[in-house]
Amino acid sequence: MNYQHILNSIEASLKGENLNGKVPDYIPELANVSADKFGMHLYCASGDHFAFGDSEERFSIQSISKVFTLALAKKYGGTKIWKRVRVEPSGGPFNSLLQLENENGIPRNPFINAGSLVIADILISNLENPKKYLLEFVQKITGDPTIDYDYEVADSEEKNGYRNRGLVNYMKSLGNIENDVEEIVDFYFHQCSLKMSCHQLAKAFMLFANEGRMLETDELILKKNNVKRLNAVMQTCGFYDEAGEFSYRVGLPGKSGVGGGIAAIHPMEYSVAVWSPPLNKKGNSQKGMIALEQLTSMTESSIF
Amino acid sequence: MNYQHILNSIEASLKGENLNGKVPDYIPELANVSADKFGMHLYCASGDHFAFGDSEERFSIQSISKVFTLALAKKYGGTKIWKRVRVEPSGGPFNSLLQLENENGIPRNPFINAGSLVIADILISNLENPKKYLLEFVQKITGDPTIDYDYEVADSEEKNGYRNRGLVNYMKSLGNIENDVEEIVDFYFHQCSLKMSCHQLAKAFMLFANEGRMLETDELILKKNNVKRLNAVMQTCGFYDEAGEFSYRVGLPGKSGVGGGIAAIHPMEYSVAVWSPPLNKKGNSQKGMIALEQLTSMTESSIF
Amino acid sequence: MNYQHILNSIEASLKGENLNGKVPDYIPELANVSADKFGMHLYCASGDHFAFGDSEERFSIQSISKVFTLALAKKYGGTKIWKRVRVEPSGGPFNSLLQLENENGIPRNPFINAGSLVIADILISNLENPKKYLLEFVQKITGDPTIDYDYEVADSEEKNGYRNRGLVNYMKSLGNIENDVEEIVDFYFHQCSLKMSCHQLAKAFMLFANEGRMLETDELILKKNNVKRLNAVMQTCGFYDEAGEFSYRVGLPGKSGVGGGIAAIHPMEYSVAVWSPPLNKKGNSQKGMIALEQLTSMTESSIF
Amino acid sequence: MNYQHILNSIEASLKGENLNGKVPDYIPELANVSADKFGMHLYCASGDHFAFGDSEERFSIQSISKVFTLALAKKYGGTKIWKRVRVEPSGGPFNSLLQLENENGIPRNPFINAGSLVIADILISNLENPKKYLLEFVQKITGDPTIDYDYEVADSEEKNGYRNRGLVNYMKSLGNIENDVEEIVDFYFHQCSLKMSCHQLAKAFMLFANEGRMLETDELILKKNNVKRLNAVMQTCGFYDEAGEFSYRVGLPGKSGVGGGIAAIHPMEYSVAVWSPPLNKKGNSQKGMIALEQLTSMTESSIF
Repeated sequence: MNYQHILNSIEASLKGENLNGKVPDYIPELANVSADKFGMHLYCASGDHFAFGDSEERFSIQSISKVFTLALAKKYGGTKIWKRVRVEPSGGPFNSLLQLENENGIPRNPFINAGSLVIADILISNLENPKKYLLEFVQKITGDPTIDYDYEVADSEEKNGYRNRGLVNYMKSLGNIENDVEEIVDFYFHQCSLKMSCHQLAKAFMLFANEGRMLETDELILKKNNVKRLNAVMQTCGFYDEAGEFSYRVGLPGKSGVGGGIAAIHPMEYSVAVWSPPLNKKGNSQKGMIALEQLTSMTESSIF
Repeated sequence: MNYQHILNSIEASLKGENLNGKVPDYIPELANVSADKFGMHLYCASGDHFAFGDSEERFSIQSISKVFTLALAKKYGGTKIWKRVRVEPSGGPFNSLLQLENENGIPRNPFINAGSLVIADILISNLENPKKYLLEFVQKITGDPTIDYDYEVADSEEKNGYRNRGLVNYMKSLGNIENDVEEIVDFYFHQCSLKMSCHQLAKAFMLFANEGRMLETDELILKKNNVKRLNAVMQTCGFYDEAGEFSYRVGLPGKSGVGGGIAAIHPMEYSVAVWSPPLNKKGNSQKGMIALEQLTSMTESSIF
Repeated sequence: MNYQHILNSIEASLKGENLNGKVPDYIPELANVSADKFGMHLYCASGDHFAFGDSEERFSIQSISKVFTLALAKKYGGTKIWKRVRVEPSGGPFNSLLQLENENGIPRNPFINAGSLVIADILISNLENPKKYLLEFVQKITGDPTIDYDYEVADSEEKNGYRNRGLVNYMKSLGNIENDVEEIVDFYFHQCSLKMSCHQLAKAFMLFANEGRMLETDELILKKNNVKRLNAVMQTCGFYDEAGEFSYRVGLPGKSGVGGGIAAIHPMEYSVAVWSPPLNKKGNSQKGMIALEQLTSMTESSIF
Repeated sequence: MNYQHILNSIEASLKGENLNGKVPDYIPELANVSADKFGMHLYCASGDHFAFGDSEERFSIQSISKVFTLALAKKYGGTKIWKRVRVEPSGGPFNSLLQLENENGIPRNPFINAGSLVIADILISNLENPKKYLLEFVQKITGDPTIDYDYEVADSEEKNGYRNRGLVNYMKSLGNIENDVEEIVDFYFHQCSLKMSCHQLAKAFMLFANEGRMLETDELILKKNNVKRLNAVMQTCGFYDEAGEFSYRVGLPGKSGVGGGIAAIHPMEYSVAVWSPPLNKKGNSQKGMIALEQLTSMTESSIF
């Protein structure tokens, strides 16, 4: 299927539109990105791909990285990870402490900060050098060895990341953290600082659309069964307190980041990534969500 | 595809198994149902259907009815219903008042009690005789005019339904209820008392698997676009505080009821209903969830 | 001690001052009261009394009535009332449902709405005609048989009192309500509609400053031990989510109402009532709190 | 007044009684204290004092120290401290994060952990060596230069104090912490480790019963006005989620610690300290609360 005219139509309807979203300002590296950036890249299971706008420019993928670390934790941490983090939608903001307190330090899902910090802890316990391992994993599944952490972003978050330290300390007090607090937040801030383009993200997410296999080589990277479950978690938990809204309007498993990126997949059909920095009140890319809603409306291709 | 051997295998593995679920005892009509009841019915888009056990015995569908009333509200209440109820997973038990208080009387989704009571209010405002209308709707989509409310169950719930009255009064105090409190709970208790078999439920849910059309006549009952969105809401909100778990383990849109029934669909593939009265701690049929997990594992047919 | 010059000084500093408080508008009978009303009355244990401003004008005492009903419940409901309502500060707004849900329908104290509704339920179970009994009790302790309910206010609240009905229904669902919901809210709305002047309130509260005895006749109305405990509950729970602030700034046991009244006592020293309709954000009379703070500052007479 | 026979009576009724309280076990230094320890010391404004049991044995005063640090913060931090911590009862457990999240990092009062950590931060900002200063202050008001920190207890808490670190990091993320996290918890764990006897605590608390003056020398240590307000905060917030119950049953301002100590005062009358390690479910000394209830019942001396 040729998606180019659909992407063109999305670009035409949204490019230059000044919606009321806001570029986050809590660290300078994110605040300084232009609000006008807008790009999209779609990869078909057939190998064809389509794009528009700033689809080759790299940006801070932030929480989208949580999908990669969860994939690694499934691979190396086994099923016992579900004793330390659940798979339920949070019904609250992404960095909430409330539910941790009500639920004995077991985060609701691996895509809220608390949950991803537990996943970081699991990777530190199971991998020799998780920071290096994660980077190589992402380089491999994108076929691009130039992908790297943005060390300034990581550094900036380390200087201000008291809330995440609060979460880790609190979970450690409840017995759900094994490793050193600073080691965990260091890994976590690095994973969030990964810089990737829409093109690279779409390629990486093809793994989840393609039952765990690399598209070009057919190499099996993740078990099919694990991929199905990762996708289920993206569907119910991928958009903070807007997961239901995204499921309702877009109807695809996906994951967003405060850098303005969203990656999503239609199993066996396509993977897609979109980037537009201004966020809506729930912390998801405002234009990105509309773009994906237009995509599944025009193609009538939601998973439902 | 012939699902009979798969259903046989599910029946063989679970029938007679005494898990630790509990039949709910808050009204005698539910408490008196045998914990051993177990049936399943699967309807294919091809028209074939398969079953085992007590699949023809009618039981109280309880909250599964919320899917039918939401479908009617989408049809007659228009898009403005989403100003009065959201589509986010609740992150809490089905009858919680907490979120109502934090969120100004707007229920998180139409499948928690508060949300379904708002839907009932909408139907009362838009239909002449919603109780009659709902019954005729269900009779039509199942092709079975003998389906009826269980007036003893409805009566029993009316005598004890103080929590639901609490919810309606509270939402009315916040301006989210238009009609008389007693009229709303009367409709609501009747909808929950509907008695249907797995066979009938599977047939009714085929509407959601078949883009809104009756399988035999191809008559369009619900718009395709509305059906996709109903399915999305089932996916993220259909199982109370276990929606993520169901999505993770089973991977189908569905809805459960405290009568022990679960109905689910695989778009364009099949609809399925299962019944086993003992509930797990989250209020969903324990055996029913395992049966559906076995189904999608054996057929490798989750939507992800 | 002659308090008149102190009262004069308070009147001089606050009369005509336009602070940023707001007269509540949820029922017309309260909304129509002039924001300029300001009066105070202080009764000494010696029998002397002092006043200024609108101290003889009757107003809706609203939640101040909760002290009278609690006194009656202590007298007729026995110690078992503390199994149905606690004596802890609520740490939340006066009509919150949150804590009810977390704490199994046992209200935190008898001065939040939920708690006072349980007290109403207790009086209905223990008194033949509680509405008549309460009125006669207040008439007796003030020596004024003209005190009456404001039936229009009660009627107005009955027409809009869905939140209180929500609370009662919810507690009934949890087993903490014995009587009919409408009977309880009818009694409750009447108790809140009591009209009294600062003079009458100060005289009534002298009972709590005087170890349970009528000042003029020395008649024992309430047990000394019960009075001490009533005063303790006023100290920790008398001002919704501002009880600590009142204790800190004023340092007297007391109780406020949304009609703009506050009554307080200094054990064995004096009782005092103040009235000014505009409320602060926490729902307490803004000018009334300042007036009482000035009183205890100038007299150096807090209980601490 | 001679209180000795009253103290004897309390000792007789409670000594050796095995109630269902539990000695806390989260650090070995507290867990190893004998559950049978029981002592009490009462200091009259006249200078007389009375005691029984283990009243001279030093124990870990834990949260009772929060009264001393608050007194110093009032002295050196000025009124602006009330912009960083409130004076409302918490309506929740002592180390809750819930309210911090709902209330923007401003703790409800200075006696919950979060609030006392803010007070520690204030002292670090205002005093050159707060750890030394606090120790000298306590030595001075007790007249006993041998009082010291228990460095093993402090060390043990530092090794496990992740929840308190969680609180400080979280408040720092919300802008309510100025100094280094580790410096704050180090000071905090030391203040909690202070070892004092009932005799010493009663003497120290006489300051609060005596309008801020040393009993023997009449030296003014704290302003009278500040002392009244400290006492008010003790009254409403001194016993975690049992402040109302203590006020109701005992009727004195006071403060408890998980080491099993409670110190309380009757303004201008007496100060009293009691020690019994087993705690009730709310974290207050079970026998200590009963002893104080007996004291105010037998002397009819509550402040109400």
